[in-house]
Amino acid sequence: MAEYKLYCFDKSGNAYKVALMLNLSGADWKPRFVDYMNGETRTEEFRELNPMGEIPLLEHNRLVLSQSGVILDYLAGKIGKFGAKNEAQRREILRWILFDNHKLTSYIATLRFLRTFTDRGENDVTKFLEARSKTALKVLNSHLQDSRFAIGNRVTIADFSMCGYLYFQDEIGINFAEYPHITRWLAEIQNLEGWAHPYDLMPGESIKA
Amino acid sequence: MAEYKLYCFDKSGNAYKVALMLNLSGADWKPRFVDYMNGETRTEEFRELNPMGEIPLLEHNRLVLSQSGVILDYLAGKIGKFGAKNEAQRREILRWILFDNHKLTSYIATLRFLRTFTDRGENDVTKFLEARSKTALKVLNSHLQDSRFAIGNRVTIADFSMCGYLYFQDEIGINFAEYPHITRWLAEIQNLEGWAHPYDLMPGESIKA
Repeated sequence: MAEYKLYCFDKSGNAYKVALMLNLSGADWKPRFVDYMNGETRTEEFRELNPMGEIPLLEHNRLVLSQSGVILDYLAGKIGKFGAKNEAQRREILRWILFDNHKLTSYIATLRFLRTFTDRGENDVTKFLEARSKTALKVLNSHLQDSRFAIGNRVTIADFSMCGYLYFQDEIGINFAEYPHITRWLAEIQNLEGWAHPYDLMPGESIKA
Repeated sequence: MAEYKLYCFDKSGNAYKVALMLNLSGADWKPRFVDYMNGETRTEEFRELNPMGEIPLLEHNRLVLSQSGVILDYLAGKIGKFGAKNEAQRREILRWILFDNHKLTSYIATLRFLRTFTDRGENDVTKFLEARSKTALKVLNSHLQDSRFAIGNRVTIADFSMCGYLYFQDEIGINFAEYPHITRWLAEIQNLEGWAHPYDLMPGESIKA
């Protein structure tokens, strides 16, 4: 049995944040496919595990953890990689993870979902989400102009959090040529040993047990 | 000079999360009014302080901190109140603060802003935000059915984060009678010594220097 079990599916950037951390760490982990698209996270069984009804979930020893930011922080402590080395770094990491949750992933993940997995087409909601997404991307792009990674020269869990949905570029419908520093940063992460695209790292419907 | 200086304004629920913590702790703090409505957070001077362009900011000694979740965590450590007592509580607090940033405040604050401070009226965007807000309120209401506060029987910074916008109920346009456990919980927080409504705790335009 693998040490870490990650409840995930290949379309979830939030699950990818954790899968990427596990894979880049060389951790002993295995995915457990969740059939989100067919409503598994709305079942009673799943709500028992996570009343927030969200992916990812991580099982480790007897703990079941939810919220990607909590899981990343937990793994950084357990594995001893990609975490903070002092209090100032810890605050900076948390700051960018909160920014990601509040302003980046929140809008981009929803925009991508509406554009890629529904057939409602363009409307005021996609326009609204696109504008909010671009504001967040602009903040991140400016930051990465002067900083190699989210926190200085070292990859941390803040990077994993923020890049979660950004390898799905074709599905978001925003032209990333406007964000050259984000593009450079994504390529640097992509070059790390153990990197894989979400669609290659996590199971999709096709290999459902 | 007060020990803590909080950049804030009375309409900001995100700033209120921190103001409430400071006031309930009996900390020595003073507000510094930010003229958000007239674009102060978009000025170069403000962006120097916080490139994310957001309120609140906290000045303490020589530190300038942003992101309410980071500031709350910092204050809990400095003041020694309303924080975690062990690792499991620390994870739970972070979990609810992330939920707040990702699913609760993110939608409710925006919905309230559109409904109260713009004249665009009801449209597909407000409908979208209302539906998302209600999903988050339902999760919180269920949680508070079995838990007096966010984390068991003790008030923590997770409560301050989640209640940030919920005393602006009249401005959100959602009927809170559907969420009786949230109503009970808000009343409990309101009964704590040092509680004040955001409009009483932080400066508005009227008292601008």
